[in-house]
Amino acid sequence: MARLVLKFGGTSVADIARIRNVARHVKREVDAGHQVAVVVSAMSGKTNELVGWCREASPIHDAREYDAVVASGEQVTSGLLAITLQAMGVNARSWQGWQIPLKTDGAHGAARIEDIDASEIVRRFGEGQVAVIAGFQGIAPDNRIATLGRGGSDTSAVAIAAAVKADRCDIYTDVDGVYTTDPRIEPKARRMARVSFEEMLEMASLGAKVLQVRSVELAMVHKVRTFVRSSFDDPDAPGMGDFDNPPGTLICDEDEIVEQQVVTGIAYAKDEAQISLRRVQDRPGVAATIFGPLAEAGVNVDMIVQSVSEDGSATDMTFTVPAGDVAKAEGVLDKAKADMRYDVVQSETGLTKVSIIGIGMRSHTGVAATAFKALANRGINIRAITTSEIKISILIDGEFTELAVRTLHSAYGLDKA
Amino acid sequence: MARLVLKFGGTSVADIARIRNVARHVKREVDAGHQVAVVVSAMSGKTNELVGWCREASPIHDAREYDAVVASGEQVTSGLLAITLQAMGVNARSWQGWQIPLKTDGAHGAARIEDIDASEIVRRFGEGQVAVIAGFQGIAPDNRIATLGRGGSDTSAVAIAAAVKADRCDIYTDVDGVYTTDPRIEPKARRMARVSFEEMLEMASLGAKVLQVRSVELAMVHKVRTFVRSSFDDPDAPGMGDFDNPPGTLICDEDEIVEQQVVTGIAYAKDEAQISLRRVQDRPGVAATIFGPLAEAGVNVDMIVQSVSEDGSATDMTFTVPAGDVAKAEGVLDKAKADMRYDVVQSETGLTKVSIIGIGMRSHTGVAATAFKALANRGINIRAITTSEIKISILIDGEFTELAVRTLHSAYGLDKA
Repeated sequence: MARLVLKFGGTSVADIARIRNVARHVKREVDAGHQVAVVVSAMSGKTNELVGWCREASPIHDAREYDAVVASGEQVTSGLLAITLQAMGVNARSWQGWQIPLKTDGAHGAARIEDIDASEIVRRFGEGQVAVIAGFQGIAPDNRIATLGRGGSDTSAVAIAAAVKADRCDIYTDVDGVYTTDPRIEPKARRMARVSFEEMLEMASLGAKVLQVRSVELAMVHKVRTFVRSSFDDPDAPGMGDFDNPPGTLICDEDEIVEQQVVTGIAYAKDEAQISLRRVQDRPGVAATIFGPLAEAGVNVDMIVQSVSEDGSATDMTFTVPAGDVAKAEGVLDKAKADMRYDVVQSETGLTKVSIIGIGMRSHTGVAATAFKALANRGINIRAITTSEIKISILIDGEFTELAVRTLHSAYGLDKA
Repeated sequence: MARLVLKFGGTSVADIARIRNVARHVKREVDAGHQVAVVVSAMSGKTNELVGWCREASPIHDAREYDAVVASGEQVTSGLLAITLQAMGVNARSWQGWQIPLKTDGAHGAARIEDIDASEIVRRFGEGQVAVIAGFQGIAPDNRIATLGRGGSDTSAVAIAAAVKADRCDIYTDVDGVYTTDPRIEPKARRMARVSFEEMLEMASLGAKVLQVRSVELAMVHKVRTFVRSSFDDPDAPGMGDFDNPPGTLICDEDEIVEQQVVTGIAYAKDEAQISLRRVQDRPGVAATIFGPLAEAGVNVDMIVQSVSEDGSATDMTFTVPAGDVAKAEGVLDKAKADMRYDVVQSETGLTKVSIIGIGMRSHTGVAATAFKALANRGINIRAITTSEIKISILIDGEFTELAVRTLHSAYGLDKA
């Protein structure tokens, strides 16, 4: 007997037929003797409809009212799943955030979870009752509904798993696990059986959109073993209920990963832009002068490279931002030109950041060299490089994205079982 | 300065454009210096969508889960109206039933209001804040959402008006008042300026679908002056904000109606059926033997006529039911034939009940005679008659419905200003 939290996203509960499929996944675990809590998102499309109405009512609106409107989507799904489970003979009831209560701070629209009183849910586990919990929401100190921001249902699930001390938090989604790279680009990509929290964090922040960064962080902090699997599999297919080795990817502490790979995955982020400031007058504090105002304006700066300018008398400062932030960044730079003392701004869009991720590279050398050589062999020019303990990121021209991903995937032997 | 509760139904809040129109009605009253609470229904169509999902999930379902799902419709509207009001510069916030709290009994799906703690709403009136309240819902003793049943938003509005001691409860709907009869049948029908609670109750139960019976009963008990008016009027047209005499119909205590008419309106209910039991063996308790089982089966029996059978040796028992209940009624009668001891059941559908309503008939004689004579002159055959203190109901063949309504409307001079 184990305690499980299962989370189902919007496409998994898009209509009653799919909710019925979700219920079969839940029933399988209940029938196996497990104690189960389920966290659900809004039916797919509903959140967008609700958000659209709020915006139509007023482009700028009270976040507390937005929360009251938008949280209704998850409320509906939780009730419908409870009804469906009961019809299958499973003892179940729905819970809204304020009923648990799942307490948040007062940051309506993007609240943080502060405390979860899971005592009543745990007590009912003892009576064999499944808790069906509306994700994405809690109750703020003002006694009003607060939502956790987009992707908040993953965060709800992990937080509830921590609160009930679950053995595992299963995130059912529209992919069947975490892959060594994007299978749409590299058909030889393999599903990983296990990946560490740290590696997943790097992958999540790089556009491997399986899990929100925030929920991975939370899982890492509370050491919640989190399992990514498909909700579209036949719930009663062989092995689906295998407790020790179900189909999917386990995100866990690195201690649990016996045979650590040097490199575990290749991630990429398209639509990056590079901005270069030429001939910046080098003096102490120049970086703060440039990046302070950009941060204040909410520009997401990444991959900063500082180099001596051609004639050696000044500095060139180059960094990347998402393509959508270029106009905003240029506005900030233009306004603060006097302070920043640079000659000219150059920007280029249509770039891609490819990243090589692996906890094993902490203790291995030569990982970067392998990448550089492989890319050079294919004639792919490197525009910038940044490295961290477990990640090497390389900026390239966007047209080489697929080639670079496949090249690196193969260079580290990830296409071999 | 007065205190007003305004209620807007589903068609009045069907989309953001209409919600904006509603907000203009609210703003008009706020600008006039009144303290305002608004009660809203779900956007039109939404409740049916939610109910449909519950039924699709399981034809028989937990009423507590049904309530969690269905109450979300009003929650959404309340948030959207609050946003819209704020965008117009009106201080407003939404309230869900559990936040007020509006406490109900435990009869989920058709709960009754037990207590409303209006103290915080009234306190905020003093700060100039408009309360935008999700109708149709409250919180049950089990700390879960309970809905009040169909038409429950009218009931919410009247109950809240009683709790905040409002000067008036304005029910904004898709008609502009209560008419002397159905204007689609009799174009000369006139909008009444005032009608008593008792009269409105008879009209509501007879298919003048302006207000639910239950909300009229509640208004009568708590003496809540209730005003029926159109939400589709231009909110800023002349006279709309006239406190003493706005356009619409005031439902009030009969003391407030100075010049009482003998007859105030003609109502009708189509699709009635008549069931006759021939040669029932007359003995004490026979009526209970017949109508007890029908009531248990949920058959809505009306207009009971008992008469001696042709040869004088037994009783004929005739009563009406809605046409949709005939099969169920016949099933009950057939099953209990041994107990009831009758010879034969005859039933006829396609009948109409026309009713003449007026508080004044309590103190006037000859009201019924006028109707009988007028119908006879048009060759309309009367199948059954029942009377109460303020109502005469006449059962006729359905094909004469429109003719009978027009004839009676004219016979009592209702077509004259």
